[in-house]
This record gives sequence, C-alpha cells and structure tokens, in this order.
Amino acid sequence: MRMSQMYLPTLKETPADAEVTSHKLMLRAGMIRKLGSGIYTYLPLGYKAISNLEEIIKEELNKKGAQELLLPALQPASLWEESGRLENYGPELMRLEDRHAREFCLGPTHEEVITDLVRDEVRSYKELPLNLYQIQTKYRDEVRPRFGVLRGREFIMKDAYSFDADEKGLNESYQQMYDAYCNIFSRCGLEYRPVLADTGTIGGDDSHEFMVLADAGEDIVVYCEECDYAANLELATADSKVIAQDEEAKELKVVDTPEVSTIEDLVTELDLAAHKMIKAVLYQVDEEPVLALVRGDYEINEVKLGNILDVVNLELAAEEVYQKLDTVKGFTGPVKLEEIKIVADELVMEMSNAVSGANKLDQHYLNVNPGRDFKVTTVADIREVKVGEDCIQCGSQLKQTRGIEVGQVFKLGTKYSKALEATFLDQNGKPQPLVMGCYGIGVSRTIAAAIEQNHDEYGIKWPKALAPYNVELLVLGSGEVMEQAEEFYQQLKEEGIEVLLDDRAERAGVKFNDADLIGAPIRVTIGARSLADGKVEVKLRQTGEEFKVEVEEFLAKIESLLTDSIY
Amino acid sequence: MRMSQMYLPTLKETPADAEVTSHKLMLRAGMIRKLGSGIYTYLPLGYKAISNLEEIIKEELNKKGAQELLLPALQPASLWEESGRLENYGPELMRLEDRHAREFCLGPTHEEVITDLVRDEVRSYKELPLNLYQIQTKYRDEVRPRFGVLRGREFIMKDAYSFDADEKGLNESYQQMYDAYCNIFSRCGLEYRPVLADTGTIGGDDSHEFMVLADAGEDIVVYCEECDYAANLELATADSKVIAQDEEAKELKVVDTPEVSTIEDLVTELDLAAHKMIKAVLYQVDEEPVLALVRGDYEINEVKLGNILDVVNLELAAEEVYQKLDTVKGFTGPVKLEEIKIVADELVMEMSNAVSGANKLDQHYLNVNPGRDFKVTTVADIREVKVGEDCIQCGSQLKQTRGIEVGQVFKLGTKYSKALEATFLDQNGKPQPLVMGCYGIGVSRTIAAAIEQNHDEYGIKWPKALAPYNVELLVLGSGEVMEQAEEFYQQLKEEGIEVLLDDRAERAGVKFNDADLIGAPIRVTIGARSLADGKVEVKLRQTGEEFKVEVEEFLAKIESLLTDSIY
Repeated sequence: MRMSQMYLPTLKETPADAEVTSHKLMLRAGMIRKLGSGIYTYLPLGYKAISNLEEIIKEELNKKGAQELLLPALQPASLWEESGRLENYGPELMRLEDRHAREFCLGPTHEEVITDLVRDEVRSYKELPLNLYQIQTKYRDEVRPRFGVLRGREFIMKDAYSFDADEKGLNESYQQMYDAYCNIFSRCGLEYRPVLADTGTIGGDDSHEFMVLADAGEDIVVYCEECDYAANLELATADSKVIAQDEEAKELKVVDTPEVSTIEDLVTELDLAAHKMIKAVLYQVDEEPVLALVRGDYEINEVKLGNILDVVNLELAAEEVYQKLDTVKGFTGPVKLEEIKIVADELVMEMSNAVSGANKLDQHYLNVNPGRDFKVTTVADIREVKVGEDCIQCGSQLKQTRGIEVGQVFKLGTKYSKALEATFLDQNGKPQPLVMGCYGIGVSRTIAAAIEQNHDEYGIKWPKALAPYNVELLVLGSGEVMEQAEEFYQQLKEEGIEVLLDDRAERAGVKFNDADLIGAPIRVTIGARSLADGKVEVKLRQTGEEFKVEVEEFLAKIESLLTDSIY
Repeated sequence: MRMSQMYLPTLKETPADAEVTSHKLMLRAGMIRKLGSGIYTYLPLGYKAISNLEEIIKEELNKKGAQELLLPALQPASLWEESGRLENYGPELMRLEDRHAREFCLGPTHEEVITDLVRDEVRSYKELPLNLYQIQTKYRDEVRPRFGVLRGREFIMKDAYSFDADEKGLNESYQQMYDAYCNIFSRCGLEYRPVLADTGTIGGDDSHEFMVLADAGEDIVVYCEECDYAANLELATADSKVIAQDEEAKELKVVDTPEVSTIEDLVTELDLAAHKMIKAVLYQVDEEPVLALVRGDYEINEVKLGNILDVVNLELAAEEVYQKLDTVKGFTGPVKLEEIKIVADELVMEMSNAVSGANKLDQHYLNVNPGRDFKVTTVADIREVKVGEDCIQCGSQLKQTRGIEVGQVFKLGTKYSKALEATFLDQNGKPQPLVMGCYGIGVSRTIAAAIEQNHDEYGIKWPKALAPYNVELLVLGSGEVMEQAEEFYQQLKEEGIEVLLDDRAERAGVKFNDADLIGAPIRVTIGARSLADGKVEVKLRQTGEEFKVEVEEFLAKIESLLTDSIY
C-alpha cells in the first residue's frame, strides 16, 4: 500500500482519555477510532492486523477438524430463559425488542444458540465428535468499558463449541483446542501462559485461560517456576502454612478497642500477629446475609467464595443488614451472631485463642476458639494465595505476574444440553445429553495484548505474523530514489509480501517517527547517499539492529529475514 | 472435507415454511437454519459460499483502491438525529438502550458513522479521493421478513463509501465502483443487469441497482433490448403515446353511475376507452390530503409520486379524509374539490372531455377539461411504465423482467456531509462539504440470488466461483475404491482445489441425491466397475454432461475443467 493513498491518520499527540499503552498506540498509529464508550472502529491498519490473526485462528482450528459457521448475533431472549441465564447474566446482556415487542438480546456468547442448533440436527453418536466455531462481533454492556479494545462493549471474538458423547470424548476435544490455542498464540509470537481458571457465568467444570503476560493485564497469574502449575489468582490454591496455634483454649473475654476496626490497627493495638486475628466480612446473597472468615494475614478470594455459594456476583452487605443482625461494621465477628450462614477458610479452623470482632462498637473478643465459640456452615479454601506460598504440585515457591486473558477453554459438560434438552442416541439407542466444551479467543483483545507486549516508547514492534505490513519502504527523495523504491515495492508485492511504501511528501523526521509508530518488523530506508553506493539501509524494529544491503541482494535478504531471523 | 465428518445436515423433505427455491434449497442442502423470523445461522457449507463471495468482493474493491475497515454495528442514536434519519427510518431501525439508558441503534447502513469518522480525520483535498468499505452484519427490522436470506432482519452486507472534493470526483468514484460491481457479479457467473434506481431512504442523486435476473425477484426491471436502457419499474420512464384528444371542449355534465367505481366498470358502463378516464387516488402525507391523477389506462407509480412530494412512504387516505373533503371513495375526482394539492401526470394535461369522479356517491362528470374544470398543483411523470411502451433512449419497445437486487450504488452528494458538517479545505483553503457516494452489496442475498438463477429440480448448480466445493468425489465401495478416492482427495487438496469426499456409509441413491442437492460443479464417481478399466466417471452439474476419465489423467482433466470449461 502507498501511504500517500492510505487512510492512515497517525497522531503525534496521545489522546487524553487513553490510559494503557496499547490503547494509546492503536489510536496514534491510526488503527482504531472511538465511536462511543467501549465501541471502536477498526481503521484499515487495525483491520489488517485483525484479519491476520483471524487467518491464523482459522488455519489452526481447521487443522483440528473444527468447522466454521456463523451464528446470528440477535438471539431470542426465550433461549436464554431456557438456559436460566437471562436473569443470571444481568445488565451486561444487551437487550432489545423488535417491532412486535418480542424480546431479543445481542449475543455476548453463543452456548444457547449453538445448543439450540444441534439439538435439532445431531441424532446419533455416529455424528460425534463435532466442533463448530465462528468469528463474530459480540456485545457485552460492561460496567466500565476501558483500555480501548481490551475491554470493549462491541468486540470481535472467536468462539468454538465441541460436542461429544462422553467425558472421555470431551477431554480429547478439550485437549485438541488447548493445543490449537498454544499453536495460535505461539505463531502470533506472543509470550503467553495457559492457567487454571474460574468458569464464571459460562459455567462448567474445568477451564484454562490463555494469558498474554503484560504489565497492563487486569488479571493476576499465580505460577510456579519449578513445575507447570499456573492459575488465575481468582482460582489459585497454595499449600499454605498452618501456623501452630495448639495452645489450650482460654476463656472468651471482651476487650475494648476504641476506633480499631482494621487488622493492621488491631496488630498494633493488641500487639498480636495478624495470623491470630479472624478477618470477618459480611456479604449478602439475594436477601440472605453470609459471613466469610479468613485468617487475618489473608484476603478473602471472592471468586472462590462465590463458587462455594453458587453465585456469580457477591455483594458486600448494606448498612441495614448490619442493623438487622445487631452488629457493627468493623467489629463484626462470628461469635454470638445468630442465624447466619458462616463460610470459614480451612485455616481459620486451625486457629485457637484468636481475636474477632464482638459485634459491638469498639469491642473485640479475645480467646475465640472455632467450634467452641461459633459454629460454621461451610469450611473451604476461600483465601487468596500470597506470593511465596508453596506450590500444591511441587512445594516450590509461587510467584505472581500480570496477564491479559486472550483466550479461555471450558469443559461445560451437560449444563446447556440438559437445560435445552439436546440429546443424541448412544450405541444402545438410548437418549443421552451431549457433552459440551466451549472455547473463546478475544480477537480484538489479542491484538491489543500483542501491542502491550511488543512496543517501546516510539511505537509498536509487531511480531511478523500479526504485522499489518511486514516491510516499510521509507523513501527519502524523488527521481531515481523513488524509482528504486517503486521497483522494490513491486518486487515485494509480487512475492506476496505485505509492504507499505512511504511515498508521502513529508519531512524525513515525520516519516521515521511514523515508521516507528506503525512498527513494521523491517524498515528499509532508500536515500540518495547510500543508493549511490548501490545500497539501502535496513532496520529491524524488534531488535533495533541496523545494516546495509546491496540493491541486488535486496529481495533475497528480505525473504530470508522474514523466514528465519525475526519472529 | 470428508462428508463423514462434516456438519452437513441435508434434508430430503422441504420444510413447510419455505416459499422460494433458494430458501428451500439452502435449508435442504444444509447451508442455513432459522433461529427466528428473518434470522439465520450459516452452517459450514453456507458459510463457505459466503466466504468465497467475500473474497471476490475484497479483491475487486482493493483493485480499485478501496480500503477495508470495520465500523461498529452499535451506533449512537444521536448520530441519526444529526442526519435527520432517526425518525425517518421508522420501525425498520432496531433500537436499544444501554445500561445507562443511552439510546443506540443497530446499523442498517453506515452513512452517519462513516461521515462522523472522516469529519474528524480528513482535512485537506490532498487526502481525497478516499474509498472505505467493510463487510459486516447489518440489521433491518423488516415488516415481513421472508424468502430465507433474501429478505432477512440480520444479514451480511458489503458497504463502501467514497469521499471526493467535487462532483467530477464523485462521478469517477461512482464509475469505479460501478465497474467493480460488474467485475464482481461477472466473476460470480451471474446473469445480472445494472438498472437506474430510486434512492429511497438513503437519499442522494443518481443510483443504479444491480439486478440478478430471476423469476423469484421482488423487483421488476424495465429494459430495452435494442439499447442499454434499464431501470427499476419504480423509476422507469417511457416515451408514452399522447392519444390525440384535441376535440373542442364540451359542457361539463354529471352522469349517474350507480355502483360503478372502477375504471374497468366505467369503460363498460359508458362505452368509452380507459384513456378517456381520469384515475384519481387520494393519499395523505402527514395530515395533508393529496390527490394524484393519471390517465385511466395507467397505474400510479407511488415511488415517483413520493419523490415529487418528498416523502419516503405514501399512505392511502383514511375514511375521515374523504368525509372532510366532502367526497366519496370510488367517486373522487379533481373537479370542485376545494383546497387540495393535486399532482397530475403529464398525460392527464393532454386530455379533453374526459370522465372523472364527481365526488358524490354513484356520480361521475363527463367532459372534464384540465385547466378549465380544475387546477393542478404539480404536473409530473407519476405513471407506471407499461410493457411495450417506447424506450426514451431509442424508441424501441420496452420489456419487463423480474430481478433480485443484489447491489446498489448511490451518488449521495453532500446530503450527509452537510448534515454532519464534514468538510475539507479546498485548494484555496476554504472549507467545503465532502462529496459522497455509497455502494452496497447484499452478500447473503447474492448467494440466494445465485441459487435462484442456478438450480434444477434436484438441487443447486453452483457457478464455480461461489461453489463451496468445486469437486465432489462420490465413493461407491470400500477397499481399493476408497483408496483411490483418498488418493484423488489428497491430490486435489494439494492443488488447493476445494473438494468434498463422500466417504459416508450410505446407499448410492442417497449419495447421488445429496451430490445433486449440494451441487458441486464437478462430480466424480469412483466405483469398482469403471475403476477395473482404470477409469472414473465425471458429471458436470451445470450441463449434465457425463464422461469417463482415465485415472492417470484425472488431475489434469479436473484442472482444465476448472480453468476453461465451466463457469
């Protein structure tokens, strides 16, 4: 493409409302423009990157026998009623009515629609396994759309759905997709990690997220450097140390703690370690209050807690709940708190003579002993893993890093097939629910994640597989210089190499800046001086390496660079 | 693709609610499935045809310098207010609110969004011309969705928008797109015709529709066989014959015509030709009544009338309008009808001593003379062209045929750029509104239109450019037969030829029926008997031609057939 003719509005200044690097660079490089909150146009440069990724995804999924189709974005609300998600999904689900006041929603995901499709078509175990996928625009009315296309309300997603006859089949399908995802993100040149993940509103049994490691990530990945354990912090578990507290149980007593309502302040006030405190947080699930307990040196992991309680979103209790329970915010504890569901972390049950809130303003209990002083409804792992804890697999120390979730695979099991009565006849002619998996890749998000991981202060450093253009010819001059550039341009195009020709009547500085911003892996500068020596200057965007190439060897050199030397 | 593994649910029976051939065949061949009224899933076979067409469209548009991008489907309603179309578009526009009660619509077309995009980016005449396009899912809440994907509520469209500095530039851009469309539909192997068209709700000056000629078409194309004149009936004009009526004006008189309220009955009752009658139809535009007049041997063309009155949809007058005007339905005429806007066809003004309704039950006037007996507000061509009238270009006889509109090109001019204040600086540094064109292709509709034009009673006869699979290998047997088929399958795949291998354990009859239904251009039957002679049987779907091919010559023969012999 000739830049003189391309719709490529680059910006010198960073727009004010862009917070993260990928958002800034996608705006500045003329890849995207905002239409509304969380709603973006992909300009030609941005759309080319998207198309490159889509091509890689299709190739890798097709290799695994997955088949591409296209499901509607407009979905009858009645299908979501059948699955029970119409209410469950909440305000993130965009809803509308047609001219006849029939209710629809805009698909944020397509489990219902695909299950509805196959329940009418798949009859026998002979038609299984089946894996169907689509690349499509999806809608999710995020509370806080932000970070450009990293968290948008309209976004491009690849979603795949597998159908098997049994658990064993599902495990194979899941592994196939897991492998395909590894191939996809490797081909994209991304540093990524598959991690154990929560299943959220999608539901199901096992799940992995594919995380592109980047500081701007909203997710925290807990991983072990010694073995392959890696999990989203939301779900991560550790072999936490039970700190010996096997003293003899002492008598429960009240202590005045004026204005001391945090663990930190209690540690100071009572001169006791945090692991002697019981941290109690009051939630409400629908109308019912729930008290969650962890040891004072941990935080509550709300995702784990939500899973125990079987709710997707937890709410902190409102003031009236405290009043109704006759307790006080900041001084809540499990002792003598009547008729309430209590979920305690495993480590809490190992504590003795602990400190907890006394449910009265400015008072705490000393010598609280679980079992003796309060009963719990449920004991479970509801604490958040800390850096340095022991890996459950190998005992080595756990680390944490930030990641951007670009893909997720789920073992759904029979959640949707049972709800929508999607069955097949097994080898004995008996109807069985289809065993499903679902597999997503955030297409637009992956492009942003690639930029988060591949940039410097001057702009994008595209991995070659995603690069909208692999080569930029930067022309400094006219006449013979431009003629030589045109010749290179035609040669590269004939070889099927995507090439950008900066033939604009701009100053050299503007051209060099735009080249760094747009980030083609190979920049070739064609100027009068080196051309007089029969040479052009090549610079590799990833490494910064610069060298001269003879005009005669130009094409061969570019081809070998693209094949071997750069990722 | 191996049929044993493909999600290709063919149907023997035609589903009850399918009216037209393409709808029936797309359902039966396993190309589409209905999710809701006017909302369809494209199954793998259907989506492959869609993808083939998209590829052709992209190639031809890119050749003309158009650049692909992707605009959001979710559009802020405020943009449609700016252009004035929010109300204008009516209930066809699907509307929704986000979680903050902000209004949005789902894009049926993208003039507003693209104009909003460029108004912030294009500054100078140097950046023009510009042509941007996208292929995207669009939404239109049709009153009566029908005919499968021919008239859906969610459909795939290619829409392009050109921006020029002046009328001359627009004309060039328009011609480029016109040529690209001809290339696209020619490459698709379709019999089509570009015709003059109305601009409808899009607005603008000139427009052509691209019509695929097919009996199931909802549009009527008026065309001249001697010259290149062709127009949508909605817009077609003819050099109609003024039938000499230059008699001396006689005295106006009333005649009783009990229960005679149609032109046909009047002809019998009064023994006068239809061209002596004035046909008068009462409409209402907003609150105002409008009387339209044509000669009795013509019909009123409501699109032409609407254009004269500058309204998109005309409504027939309600009963109370007749009462208010003191006239009677079936006996309405222009004489002594007070304070009403009258639009008369040109030919009406040439009549003398005509018959018209007397605005009283069971009475007509004789000897009505325009000018003397009534005054008109506007004279214009508002009659519908009849078969056999004279071509306005060459005087030859006009014909009519049915067509399916698969594309339309518009000269928008400055309608949207003025409304949205999208300007550029001209060579004198003065701001000027961008001069726009817009260009659509119904992608899903084109596939259906291709089937309407290419089928027989057994199924689809794909033109090769659109065919999901160009070759089907129909295997009759196992062992050596299957081995040979597998070898062919691999060979064809290596050559990049899309091939379907019917390796299913089905009866021969089922396989032959499915092959005809799915309609690959080349069917190759591999059976034990002919294989014993070292041959396989080839059948061409379009012509029905059958012949044997030596196994050794197989690949060369298939390649030459695909290159030369079939379209």
